[in-house]
Amino acid sequence: MFEVTEVSSEFDAKIQQKIDAKTKPLGALGALETLAMTIARVLGPDEPQITNPTLLVFAGDHGIAASGVSIAPREVTTQMVMNFLKGGAAINLFCAQGGITMEVIDCGIAQEIHDQPKLINHRLGAGTGAIHREPAMTLGAVKQGFAMARERVTLHHSRGCNLIAFGEMGIGNTSSAAAIMAALMGREAAECVGRGTGIDAATLARKQLLVEQALHLHREQLDNPYGVLACLGGFEIVQMTGAILAAAELKMLVLIDGFIATAAALAAVTIAPHARDYMIFAHESGERGHRLMLEHLDAQPLLSLGMRLGEGTGAALAVPLVQAAAKFYNEMASLEEMGISI
Amino acid sequence: MFEVTEVSSEFDAKIQQKIDAKTKPLGALGALETLAMTIARVLGPDEPQITNPTLLVFAGDHGIAASGVSIAPREVTTQMVMNFLKGGAAINLFCAQGGITMEVIDCGIAQEIHDQPKLINHRLGAGTGAIHREPAMTLGAVKQGFAMARERVTLHHSRGCNLIAFGEMGIGNTSSAAAIMAALMGREAAECVGRGTGIDAATLARKQLLVEQALHLHREQLDNPYGVLACLGGFEIVQMTGAILAAAELKMLVLIDGFIATAAALAAVTIAPHARDYMIFAHESGERGHRLMLEHLDAQPLLSLGMRLGEGTGAALAVPLVQAAAKFYNEMASLEEMGISI
Repeated sequence: MFEVTEVSSEFDAKIQQKIDAKTKPLGALGALETLAMTIARVLGPDEPQITNPTLLVFAGDHGIAASGVSIAPREVTTQMVMNFLKGGAAINLFCAQGGITMEVIDCGIAQEIHDQPKLINHRLGAGTGAIHREPAMTLGAVKQGFAMARERVTLHHSRGCNLIAFGEMGIGNTSSAAAIMAALMGREAAECVGRGTGIDAATLARKQLLVEQALHLHREQLDNPYGVLACLGGFEIVQMTGAILAAAELKMLVLIDGFIATAAALAAVTIAPHARDYMIFAHESGERGHRLMLEHLDAQPLLSLGMRLGEGTGAALAVPLVQAAAKFYNEMASLEEMGISI
Repeated sequence: MFEVTEVSSEFDAKIQQKIDAKTKPLGALGALETLAMTIARVLGPDEPQITNPTLLVFAGDHGIAASGVSIAPREVTTQMVMNFLKGGAAINLFCAQGGITMEVIDCGIAQEIHDQPKLINHRLGAGTGAIHREPAMTLGAVKQGFAMARERVTLHHSRGCNLIAFGEMGIGNTSSAAAIMAALMGREAAECVGRGTGIDAATLARKQLLVEQALHLHREQLDNPYGVLACLGGFEIVQMTGAILAAAELKMLVLIDGFIATAAALAAVTIAPHARDYMIFAHESGERGHRLMLEHLDAQPLLSLGMRLGEGTGAALAVPLVQAAAKFYNEMASLEEMGISI
């Protein structure tokens, strides 16, 4: 469905030469040099400019939330979507401060919101099925979610966006993400399930048990990423996966946020391995399992601020670092220009 | 000389309450919440605004550089100061991107630069004495450096700056910073000396030996921070120490960059312990010894990007995070306002 092409390594030597010629000791800008290499590989080696950075927040509800796996009831998904629309959430403020266009997409929250023209309607249902008892959605819903996400990303691409980030809101979605991770990486639930936004030990034990049940129930459908997403996915995770694939297809830089976004990234890479070439990892969360997925993806996030909020907050905070990397790559003087001898 | 007052904890409960009332789970913004607490304690609990963020780059030369402790000859200090003045260095670009006012101060580079009206003249000499053979400077020079730094910081404060960061340039200055660290913390040279901008093992061994010699030579003058700075300091490290103390005296937020800036922060805290209350730590460098100093100062830097360039680059990149923390503290909606029940 998606045609994700490998990022060319044709100009790697040229890019590295340009980085090494800057007025600094070799390697002295650390992770920003690796980042500049990614930017120049994806956007081209000559003056790559980050334009119209955009963050899409995908929201969806989860059937499993009714079984008490979160600190919050699922009404909070809708309440937080309203908060995003009114501009009062952390992600609104971080996007405003970073000059990032932000958009909220209803992928299938339980209580539909009406009369909010800024809310993008990508509804796949009124919350997913409870994954420990039934599939989250049909395979058809997965494909529909991919198509809608691709359309939206294409729109932003046509508006000049070449750096796109994805956030999410959905009470219960760390359960879904942990299940997806376990299925795609062949790990035990215990290695993947964490405390989400801050549950206690008893809730953690229940959450782990439900994820184990889900993995067992759907075990015969989990041998391919589409089956994994249909059985275990959230509507927002499915659309995030599709959006990552669409952005990679369009050769955009894709900024991956925390635990949930990384599970979507893992699904995207399972479908199209070269999607990895377009990804920049923003923030290592404290959620158990995130480090394992990052290692699997050979990813070193830019930030580690101990956040566990989701919404795309880690990605938004990393945008200035991406811009700084592009700026030094394009504009920093060379040792030769300055007649410096190190 | 400096009157640094303790930051009041009078409003801590009020500040924490405001943070906890935001539309997010408790603690979910991680390090940004701690940062918001620092901002609100220093600038006041009601709508603290970061205004006119400013970064001063202090440059100075080091007598010890003639003994080959760096990858670069000391001429590079002057060449890099020219690069700063022409706007081509990493720090220029990071400051421009972050909306940070930047200024370059000649604290005593070896080859004086003429006809550059933007270069601030705070010269204490044409490079320090080689610390393994003689004192870096007199006690009078330390005091003069403090006074000049205070004057400059006061000027920026009068222009509305309440977040100030300090960078440095000086071939050989990790040797000086390591010696200051060893003297102030009572550590062995081996625990403090590192590879700077990237020296090989043989150079590292020589650098360590020279720092040991310096610590031995001046051992009777190292029982107080003024003696430590006079015997082991760089002109730029002395002025950075004075600038930190002046900023704390003026109740400004002080953003501490990497290894050299942290050695200056250590000296400042030794002179006036409450200077610590005003500090935000920007970046953990890979330089050996930095972690030990950070632990001693009970500091957890915001970034860890593996940079080892100096100039204040880590501090400049951390400014957007400080602004994000102030923004969420001031503008994020409360759970009560949104009628959210978590």
